[in-house]
Amino acid sequence: MLNPESTQIRIVLVEAQGPLNVGSVARIMKNMGLNHLVLVNPQCDPYGVEARKMAVHGAEILEKADIVSTIPEALKGCQRAIATTCLDRSLPIHLENPKHSLPWLLGYPAALIFGREDRGLTNVELNYAQRFIRIQADDSYPSLNLAQAVAICCYELYQAQLNQENSPQSQPNHDSEASLDVLEAYYQDLETILLKIGYLYPHTASSRMEKFRRLYNRAYPSTQEVAMLRGMIRQINWALSNYYGDGT
Amino acid sequence: MLNPESTQIRIVLVEAQGPLNVGSVARIMKNMGLNHLVLVNPQCDPYGVEARKMAVHGAEILEKADIVSTIPEALKGCQRAIATTCLDRSLPIHLENPKHSLPWLLGYPAALIFGREDRGLTNVELNYAQRFIRIQADDSYPSLNLAQAVAICCYELYQAQLNQENSPQSQPNHDSEASLDVLEAYYQDLETILLKIGYLYPHTASSRMEKFRRLYNRAYPSTQEVAMLRGMIRQINWALSNYYGDGT
Repeated sequence: MLNPESTQIRIVLVEAQGPLNVGSVARIMKNMGLNHLVLVNPQCDPYGVEARKMAVHGAEILEKADIVSTIPEALKGCQRAIATTCLDRSLPIHLENPKHSLPWLLGYPAALIFGREDRGLTNVELNYAQRFIRIQADDSYPSLNLAQAVAICCYELYQAQLNQENSPQSQPNHDSEASLDVLEAYYQDLETILLKIGYLYPHTASSRMEKFRRLYNRAYPSTQEVAMLRGMIRQINWALSNYYGDGT
Repeated sequence: MLNPESTQIRIVLVEAQGPLNVGSVARIMKNMGLNHLVLVNPQCDPYGVEARKMAVHGAEILEKADIVSTIPEALKGCQRAIATTCLDRSLPIHLENPKHSLPWLLGYPAALIFGREDRGLTNVELNYAQRFIRIQADDSYPSLNLAQAVAICCYELYQAQLNQENSPQSQPNHDSEASLDVLEAYYQDLETILLKIGYLYPHTASSRMEKFRRLYNRAYPSTQEVAMLRGMIRQINWALSNYYGDGT
């Protein structure tokens, strides 16, 4: 469970035009543990079929979204606000990347503001925020879909929160890693069978076996996997004793 | 302008059902400098009105997308592949986060594989990849929309590339790493011989082969090593045809 700080960050969409986008925003917010959506003068129906279709289990976020007329209303009670833009504007503002600046919102009543699908935020609107982010993208097509931009920012907020909690990442499970003597027994079995079938010759066996050792050692086989490999060798031995050739 | 490495990473969608999703994927790919989309057995029309509407200036990526029937076809020529999953499966696979593992694809002919909107990838399908990522999300609703998941991964790939360009590292030596189709041919050989000697049974072969795939994939075998493994199988076949048992 994340701490309740995430609930203090609201996503503000200014004059969103696409119900599919608004629905997708609700879904990714729920995915990333955010739940306060504010729609400034929406240009579409945030409760309709299209928005709900994209929201799926995020529909509850649409239902309780605040609808307001102006950005100052949307920011009521906030201490920090970041606005997004996809343009290198002529404005003398410093554009930052999401990873760097979004953590600054954590722990505060805060807002992350997104503009219209086609025109973004006006210069006046941008200036309600204290900081500005731009998602870096390829010069050939730098304009992201609104819901995709929100997804990336919500993801970075969630990552920032996880980092802040210093939550231990899932570690590879070393419990099951085969002990070296179990592995050694497998290499002995393998060498024996490979000599028996004429794949190895006594004078070159050790250099060739080194290659197999390197390969298997790199994979850190588990005890179960080594048992599986040894079972395979037993079966080859069995087949050699019981199998009288098929002429192929 | 980014260097052409990014063009070596293909996005693979397996049985995508939603044309809006496929279109959104094309747009974010173009935003993030990727251009090779491969659709495995798509369940929707990637050239229709809905897909184009979402793709906007990414429509050219839809037009030149490859459509194939199977994941191995989609991975043809790739040396590295990462698959995505949203579930903590019971599978003994190590799930990593995108930021950590996606940079590993850079500089290689590589694929990033996404499953169906509703069911993701099957266990068998997952095992065509060498590594696995999960986008961390809130426990209350961890399942992201397909296009949002692709957006986050494409964004992280682009970020990784920017970072790599800012701090040039010595290029990994990947000449020797076996391509996935070479590796696949080995798995086919292995399955055939193991069925022949009675180690595998037809009804359990695929689940057991998954274990072998995981083991070998973890080791990133070189072309020479795969040749060595296949040589071993040829020799076992030879021995079975020529060896009349020693009674042991």
